[in-house]
Amino acid sequence: MSQSSAHNPATEPLPLSMALISVDCVVLRLHQGQLQVLTAPAGHPNARHPFALPAGRIEISQDHNLEQAARRHIGYLTQTVPSWLEQVETIGNDSRDSRGWSLTVVYFALMRDEPEADTPDARWHDITPGGELPALAYDHQILLKAAIERLCNKIQYTTLPLYLLPESFALADIRDVFQSLLGKAPPMRSLRNRFNEETVLEGTGEKRYGSNRPATLYRMKSEAVGKRMFSRLYESTR
Amino acid sequence: MSQSSAHNPATEPLPLSMALISVDCVVLRLHQGQLQVLTAPAGHPNARHPFALPAGRIEISQDHNLEQAARRHIGYLTQTVPSWLEQVETIGNDSRDSRGWSLTVVYFALMRDEPEADTPDARWHDITPGGELPALAYDHQILLKAAIERLCNKIQYTTLPLYLLPESFALADIRDVFQSLLGKAPPMRSLRNRFNEETVLEGTGEKRYGSNRPATLYRMKSEAVGKRMFSRLYESTR
Repeated sequence: MSQSSAHNPATEPLPLSMALISVDCVVLRLHQGQLQVLTAPAGHPNARHPFALPAGRIEISQDHNLEQAARRHIGYLTQTVPSWLEQVETIGNDSRDSRGWSLTVVYFALMRDEPEADTPDARWHDITPGGELPALAYDHQILLKAAIERLCNKIQYTTLPLYLLPESFALADIRDVFQSLLGKAPPMRSLRNRFNEETVLEGTGEKRYGSNRPATLYRMKSEAVGKRMFSRLYESTR
Repeated sequence: MSQSSAHNPATEPLPLSMALISVDCVVLRLHQGQLQVLTAPAGHPNARHPFALPAGRIEISQDHNLEQAARRHIGYLTQTVPSWLEQVETIGNDSRDSRGWSLTVVYFALMRDEPEADTPDARWHDITPGGELPALAYDHQILLKAAIERLCNKIQYTTLPLYLLPESFALADIRDVFQSLLGKAPPMRSLRNRFNEETVLEGTGEKRYGSNRPATLYRMKSEAVGKRMFSRLYESTR
């Protein structure tokens, strides 16, 4: 066996992998202006905290790919399909799980708000900008922190804020996403420039009536779905 | 067994994982103004192309974590330690490897240019902005494409360009990194503003003499190492 083939996986026999492989999901929603993360019971008797991120192993007979595994584990807990699912990072080492080498692929999922209440298996915990994160079992608070940081960065140059909103929304609702995640929001004028009607939004033809003057309702243009990047961060929010 | 514990990895017995786990490394350098990617012989008789990315499985007895596994596989091919190593994404599915469910964690590594020539096991291939990528075995051209895209994005708002340069460099060398990766570069004035001496660079006290007027040489300030994000992309390069 040559040196080169010795380190190329394609030439190796099927290895008896001893690593534990899982997906961990940071599922977020905006509920009445409050950012929340979904948790499940940690289950394990030695877990130091009763709650954990929705997580579980990959079932090679069911899951064609990693994303399907993540969707399956989220689906156990909530009937709502994520409006956005994105890989955050993969953590793999010999120290995070006492049972052996453990590898987990971390996803964050954004949900449009759903009316369902907590169940014994699905509980939503509040997340406040700059506040302490909920205590979670295993290394899940660290995974949560990384996912929140990623999201807080990405809302500043992408259309991701829209994936936390209902299908139809007012500009002020976009501002509320920033407020809930960063603790501050760009000026409305700046939001209007960025999420402008030329490229990202289209009016639904409806208005929302409340205590202020009627608010125009928008939805994402179909051609803007998945088109995520702007060329600047919001300076005002940094 | 309750429903919640049925999908929490911590309560599951040690699974006999059937997935193939590997790291794949996109190793890049700038050699005489030319971006290049490192490849190794693909090895497998059924591989459709003779070259592949440096890759290999995780050895749980050797590798404490994923990054160590990546460094080990890169180390087989080159004596130079990466100046930057970053996870790009994890691909896992039942279709990329005929032997079974396969998961690979993809890294990109940046190298300061090294003088060594190609060896039978390590060959550098040119990458030209907008040009066709080198043909590689397996799905490695797709992995390469994703890594290059990530790098081309990130050089526009981070200090990553500096990790492709020698320890000491002129401002014009930074411009050359942009030119080699994007096929165009921001104006020198814009580069000077971004990589300014207050926060990122310090003079080495030396100058480089050539056909033009002497160029001031800089190095990264020690406190700037790893401090990567700027608040704007270069508009001129988009």
